[in-house]
Amino acid sequence: MNAPSSTARGRFISLEGGEGAGKSTLLAGLRDWIGQQGVTLVQTREPGGTELGEAVRAIVLDPRHHGLAAETELLLMFASRAQLVRERIEPALAAGQWVLCDRFADASYAYQGGGRGQPVQRIAALEQWACAGVTPDMTLLLDLPVATGRARATGRSAPDRIEGEADGFFERVRAAYRERAAAEPSRFRVIDATQSPAKVLADAIDAVAELTRGINA
Amino acid sequence: MNAPSSTARGRFISLEGGEGAGKSTLLAGLRDWIGQQGVTLVQTREPGGTELGEAVRAIVLDPRHHGLAAETELLLMFASRAQLVRERIEPALAAGQWVLCDRFADASYAYQGGGRGQPVQRIAALEQWACAGVTPDMTLLLDLPVATGRARATGRSAPDRIEGEADGFFERVRAAYRERAAAEPSRFRVIDATQSPAKVLADAIDAVAELTRGINA
Repeated sequence: MNAPSSTARGRFISLEGGEGAGKSTLLAGLRDWIGQQGVTLVQTREPGGTELGEAVRAIVLDPRHHGLAAETELLLMFASRAQLVRERIEPALAAGQWVLCDRFADASYAYQGGGRGQPVQRIAALEQWACAGVTPDMTLLLDLPVATGRARATGRSAPDRIEGEADGFFERVRAAYRERAAAEPSRFRVIDATQSPAKVLADAIDAVAELTRGINA
Repeated sequence: MNAPSSTARGRFISLEGGEGAGKSTLLAGLRDWIGQQGVTLVQTREPGGTELGEAVRAIVLDPRHHGLAAETELLLMFASRAQLVRERIEPALAAGQWVLCDRFADASYAYQGGGRGQPVQRIAALEQWACAGVTPDMTLLLDLPVATGRARATGRSAPDRIEGEADGFFERVRAAYRERAAAEPSRFRVIDATQSPAKVLADAIDAVAELTRGINA
């Protein structure tokens, strides 16, 4: 917010998608490509990304917290997000850096909204003040059938508290993500995540290149 | 919520007050007295009272988290509260037990509202859904000048993140508490906490006895 006016504001890219969609693989490839474009990149994640956020992450994903109420989970996710926006995302963008975030507010609409049934208006009200007006310039949604994603993720490691949910939960998550993408086509790029990792990366680079052109124009 | 209809709903008493007001001493005395009235009492606290809540408490009070945004703090307090209401307070009340809670939602109006400047409407909106309609039947506010309370608390132990705030912060907290008490005189009982511990306890028992009479009537 205190950046000199000569510094162009950075771009904020969020990456969304369910289990086994290939987010981690894509993040690594995308980070490398963005780094080659001559911009400073801050990579972060949700929940997490700050000391507070990582503490919240440990709570939220701990399978022992099986009795966590949906309302509690929603508030914890936004607590992590409010801190991440103020401590890392906004300062980076103001300094002209780019931010690549593994999940952002759309994930609450998908998981706590679609998955757990928290009302959309409740989430929107929280987003309005907790995110202080910060929204991604572009959101890449890695979309694939739930069964495909779960088959890929099987055997990776013990499922965390959210990964341990039933298929119906993830179907609702996917539906909510797709609904958000359909409602905001100018911000979302839906990528077919059943493709090879190389093709997924190529699609993501095509999308993100639009932001680079925007800057050089 | 599943209690048989023959079980009278329990009563919910919250205790509020600033640093050095004598809350801990009063809680012990009040717990003993209520226990003698033949009701089962659940004593709890905020933030905390559940496994999740105690984890949140550790984060919120840790002086190392000095960069915690006011929005983050507000969301964390309500996350703890949402869980406490669902996991402990509401089930206890439904089973006819009494609940004595060291701080509740009024504390957010005082600390995050008055102290940190978070808008009242924002706090009220959170309370509306996070607390699921649970409000104290009676709130005892231990009121005393900030300087008196701080003098009493000095040297007790290293101040936590909130106790480490400046006097102006606690003046705003006190003012917000008094404002809430004035706005809801039927729920609040303001107790002069400059009195001796015995007199404070006597005043509190007088107040709580009203709830007992309400039950026996």
